[in-house]
Amino acid sequence: MAEARIKSRAEDYAQWYQDVIAQADLAEVAGVVKGCMVIKPHGYAIWEAMQKDLDRRFKETGHKNAMFPLLIPMSFLEKEAEHVEGFAPELAVVTHAGGKELEEAYCIRPTSETIIGHFFAKWIDSHRDLPLLINQWANVMRWELRTRLFLRTGEFLWQEGHTAHSTHEEAKEEVVRMLETYRDFAHEIMAMPVICGIKSANERFAGALETLTIEGMMQDGKALQCGTSHDLGQNFGKAFDVTFQNAEGERDYVWQTSWGVSTRLVGALIMTHSDDDGLVLPPKLAPIHVVIVPIYRKDDERDAVLEAAHRIAKDLRSDGLNVEVDARTGMKPGAKYYDWERKGVPMRLELGPRDLEAKSVMCKMRLAETDENGRAVKETLSWDDLGLEVGKRLDAFQDFLYQRALAMREAGTIVVDTWEEFTAAFEDGKSSFVYAHWDGTTETELAIKEATKATLRCVPLPGNGPEPSPGKCVKTGQPSAQRVLFSKNY
Amino acid sequence: MAEARIKSRAEDYAQWYQDVIAQADLAEVAGVVKGCMVIKPHGYAIWEAMQKDLDRRFKETGHKNAMFPLLIPMSFLEKEAEHVEGFAPELAVVTHAGGKELEEAYCIRPTSETIIGHFFAKWIDSHRDLPLLINQWANVMRWELRTRLFLRTGEFLWQEGHTAHSTHEEAKEEVVRMLETYRDFAHEIMAMPVICGIKSANERFAGALETLTIEGMMQDGKALQCGTSHDLGQNFGKAFDVTFQNAEGERDYVWQTSWGVSTRLVGALIMTHSDDDGLVLPPKLAPIHVVIVPIYRKDDERDAVLEAAHRIAKDLRSDGLNVEVDARTGMKPGAKYYDWERKGVPMRLELGPRDLEAKSVMCKMRLAETDENGRAVKETLSWDDLGLEVGKRLDAFQDFLYQRALAMREAGTIVVDTWEEFTAAFEDGKSSFVYAHWDGTTETELAIKEATKATLRCVPLPGNGPEPSPGKCVKTGQPSAQRVLFSKNY
Repeated sequence: MAEARIKSRAEDYAQWYQDVIAQADLAEVAGVVKGCMVIKPHGYAIWEAMQKDLDRRFKETGHKNAMFPLLIPMSFLEKEAEHVEGFAPELAVVTHAGGKELEEAYCIRPTSETIIGHFFAKWIDSHRDLPLLINQWANVMRWELRTRLFLRTGEFLWQEGHTAHSTHEEAKEEVVRMLETYRDFAHEIMAMPVICGIKSANERFAGALETLTIEGMMQDGKALQCGTSHDLGQNFGKAFDVTFQNAEGERDYVWQTSWGVSTRLVGALIMTHSDDDGLVLPPKLAPIHVVIVPIYRKDDERDAVLEAAHRIAKDLRSDGLNVEVDARTGMKPGAKYYDWERKGVPMRLELGPRDLEAKSVMCKMRLAETDENGRAVKETLSWDDLGLEVGKRLDAFQDFLYQRALAMREAGTIVVDTWEEFTAAFEDGKSSFVYAHWDGTTETELAIKEATKATLRCVPLPGNGPEPSPGKCVKTGQPSAQRVLFSKNY
Repeated sequence: MAEARIKSRAEDYAQWYQDVIAQADLAEVAGVVKGCMVIKPHGYAIWEAMQKDLDRRFKETGHKNAMFPLLIPMSFLEKEAEHVEGFAPELAVVTHAGGKELEEAYCIRPTSETIIGHFFAKWIDSHRDLPLLINQWANVMRWELRTRLFLRTGEFLWQEGHTAHSTHEEAKEEVVRMLETYRDFAHEIMAMPVICGIKSANERFAGALETLTIEGMMQDGKALQCGTSHDLGQNFGKAFDVTFQNAEGERDYVWQTSWGVSTRLVGALIMTHSDDDGLVLPPKLAPIHVVIVPIYRKDDERDAVLEAAHRIAKDLRSDGLNVEVDARTGMKPGAKYYDWERKGVPMRLELGPRDLEAKSVMCKMRLAETDENGRAVKETLSWDDLGLEVGKRLDAFQDFLYQRALAMREAGTIVVDTWEEFTAAFEDGKSSFVYAHWDGTTETELAIKEATKATLRCVPLPGNGPEPSPGKCVKTGQPSAQRVLFSKNY
């Protein structure tokens, strides 16, 4: 009966996503603050694990964290024409403060290029001040009409990198470096394969010369933009007068980049790995790696079992694992199993009186196969070398998740040459990753979207998608240099 | 000449504080956003070090992090009468969003008791859901008229703990536990002694039954409230209908606490330890523990010195230290010394060709004494056991800072019995920690403030301040159970 609380993906994918979040107790719709969410402890712990790993990567590549104001004078946004056009409709505006109406209204930052540009202009004077490599962990706000937990919310948490360089070349290297940092994080930590590519002019960040993206495939075949890295050129440098004296003694505008990932990644994680039983977490992001469920029928068995459970937990913790002993009373083991499964704990260890005698535990992985009787396959692990054996299985689980997600994406990817093949891929609410030739115009891109709801996700970078080869646009028959990636998207 | 950029404390204490911040490149006034600040990388790194240690302490005491909305419906604040009275004058208000005027305005959170109360009401149903122990790392906004970097700014970063309990007893234990957590952090990590005490009704958090505080003494003898822990009683429980079914099956309102420290602690750190040469940092919060300055006159000496510097840096890093090699060219060693001194790096190692021959380094601590010639005392340290010797000196430096701050506070603390003694302590802009009897009324508290500008900082908890003994109020002569702490304050 309890199982029925999560709708199956086949039945209602959108409801499944919400149910997984609710049952794993990750987050909830704020309700009283339109479009916003509350991230509950289990969801926040996943975000913290992401932050910790990303922050290390940013620091290793020379970036330093800082804090800029939450509020931005409205006039700042107007200094970059494309930027204000892109963000103005989504702004939340502070008009009153300290009991008075403000002379100039502020918006709550939707992103911080403008306010950071203002300070970069104060801080940068010479080529010796460059590169300036800054990151900010912050909340931002975009007043969206249609919201969905983690994927699109009015307020969200993110990091935004902002850098300034003395040459365009160097800025472009930074843009690629940070995209690759995101890709490596997605692959190694999230166990989520992504396609790296270049956004079309139509999908580009408002104010950028070029936007690079990592795109993941969700289980319904739709794409999710998981992170972006922007070449801002000298656009913001000119808007905010960020100049430097170069080695030749001439003043020039700096070349800037910005790049960000957000709590949307928690949504990406859910939709990449979870199943009809609930959340599935890669060990590298799991707030709890192992749960130990003590099993006893009589009270006189209880103490010995609990003592052993806590001893094993302590040993595993000394190996750097996060371990929980579920000693709740008045709850049957089966109910505990169900509770931790839907919360995505990768490994469960069951420990009863017989296991104590045998000095072993029963190990059940979150995605254990079932035997011919439909029962989950469990393994007996000896107390000797338990840390080593648990570690091996968690590493294998991390790897398995990546391989499974990769196989899912490959199975859901097609290369097409005709408009018929193209439209067939998106009929009846279906989606997949479709590589097709495109003539390079926004007009055709929009016509394709109009006809199929598929959007141009990116022009794949080398090593992503099929080998580049020239061809003809599936829609117009005009020449095309390489196939690009189309998909429906979140 | 460069030295003159920091005003001495004796000359202009307020300017000294600003100069230390500017010269250490910690933060700056935002200017374009009224009363707000930008925290620059070196200042943010100190805050990150504070966060890391505090977060560990919060988790060890069973708290979990979460995220609640930045915006709070205005009507929420009005649900707790004292709370809205306390915070309404300082609110920043969002009236428009998504291009439209909002039906109900939101304020940017000045603190989150109200919005969290709303969600606690949804999450708590039974005594089994209690205690609920939540913490949030967040930005908050209070539109203040008079601001000062770190100490009082429109927007600031903080953590706010919010907990709910089934009994008042348990909530009161939590309030003390978290105050003691703050005290231990201040003593062990910030090297800053604090007085723990109870706030008077007049200084209490708006909506609390009781507020506990830690108060530090700054170098001008003024007090700084460094952290507070509140017993909210059932006030917010009643305002937001947060009820639970107790073990006897009856519904009751939960007992709540909240507690917080903020980026103000960076200001406290500066004003506790820094001197006329700039920032002084305790090693446990120093983003850089050791800077190595390579010294060479000829280019052919350069490679060998730099190679040794990097090798030593690598060794020290493997001991867990943050080490910087200052290999900047076109800058004399003296200028580098000055640069790192004002940034508060606890230890400098100088390394030249002769040191290479002797397999040693010259070690200079940030607060090294000067010899009879006025030169800083330096020590020769052998490359053998360097990590151990450096570690010892950093530990000793941490301890020295605490002892020095404690001695400063003791020297600036007096116990008085008469109004003449009391007023003398605050004449001519002076301040110190003054323990005096008080009759317990707000009327007298305000009269004392009016006459002397001294405020009642707290009623000290046992073990803080002089042994409690009864006496007569210095102002009214009415009976008093124990002396309380008065000081001017930030």
